[in-house]
Amino acid sequence: MSTTAETVRNGVDTEQLFGTLDAIKSDPSLAKFQFRARNRWIDGAHNRTTIRGFYAANQEDTSRSAEFVVDAGEPAILLGTDTGPNPAESLLHALAACLTTSLVYVAAARGVHLTAVESTLEGDMDVQGALGLSDEIRNGFDGIRVSFRVEGEAPEEKLREIVERAQQRSAVFDIVSNGVPVTVDVATA
Amino acid sequence: MSTTAETVRNGVDTEQLFGTLDAIKSDPSLAKFQFRARNRWIDGAHNRTTIRGFYAANQEDTSRSAEFVVDAGEPAILLGTDTGPNPAESLLHALAACLTTSLVYVAAARGVHLTAVESTLEGDMDVQGALGLSDEIRNGFDGIRVSFRVEGEAPEEKLREIVERAQQRSAVFDIVSNGVPVTVDVATA
Repeated sequence: MSTTAETVRNGVDTEQLFGTLDAIKSDPSLAKFQFRARNRWIDGAHNRTTIRGFYAANQEDTSRSAEFVVDAGEPAILLGTDTGPNPAESLLHALAACLTTSLVYVAAARGVHLTAVESTLEGDMDVQGALGLSDEIRNGFDGIRVSFRVEGEAPEEKLREIVERAQQRSAVFDIVSNGVPVTVDVATA
Repeated sequence: MSTTAETVRNGVDTEQLFGTLDAIKSDPSLAKFQFRARNRWIDGAHNRTTIRGFYAANQEDTSRSAEFVVDAGEPAILLGTDTGPNPAESLLHALAACLTTSLVYVAAARGVHLTAVESTLEGDMDVQGALGLSDEIRNGFDGIRVSFRVEGEAPEEKLREIVERAQQRSAVFDIVSNGVPVTVDVATA
């Protein structure tokens, strides 16, 4: 096995991963990140987010060559024209993506080669809350169910441990499970 | 002014909106929705979510003609190759999109013509949590700041009221502010 094959596992450069961990251990200020998004309303349920710059490791990151553009919409039954996934579906995407990346990085760090990771997510919502028809019913999901299918070159118990650890370390799983303070300010000109 | 111009406000068909509210008032079972996402790992920090079907109004919705495909990634400093916004950024998109759509719908229902809605979101994260370097630091954002700029044919106070009401009714604002129970199950074959 070549050195490269040992270093890059599950598509993750583990030498860089352990180097990053060591760098942060010796200078924790490197760990302060700020992520951003900018959104613009287009029409009805159609709005568009652009994402590019972020702050990391004591400086503004300039490594991205282009911005990401993500559209939102609603299906017809929610008065839109399907210009994109709806916001609740985008939240499920964020959760799936974060758990999956966490899982893949944990497996890489622990020397486990993964061969497949798939997940399905379901969130139940009684829209009487969000539509303002009930004060007893919450606006968001009542709950979210995530079902993973994970295959890799490790015993079942090890694979389950990796999924467990991914939950313990996923940023979006923490946000969605525990909530985060959100402040909103408004300018009208 | 034509009837159409009066009915469709901010791109929202208010006749359909009030019709939907009346229908749910007379049969609350119509308000039970289930949204879904399916994710597949590709390589490293690259994974892909597909979104299409959902349950609404006592049946499986079949109105969408195609699935949405959303890719996730990480920037170089987080060991990825920028194959998409990272999961935390996607969560900011979900929040921005939901607040914006809520705001636009509330304005439509209240007879306010909007001319511009923009927002910028920032989330601070100390990645020592998500990287497993500290048990005292949380994995997710410490907090999220949303800054709206709203313009419309209404006094400033009315526009501010609409943003306030949008926060009170946004599904994703509720989820991100208050958290939601998330269950994760795993199959390994």
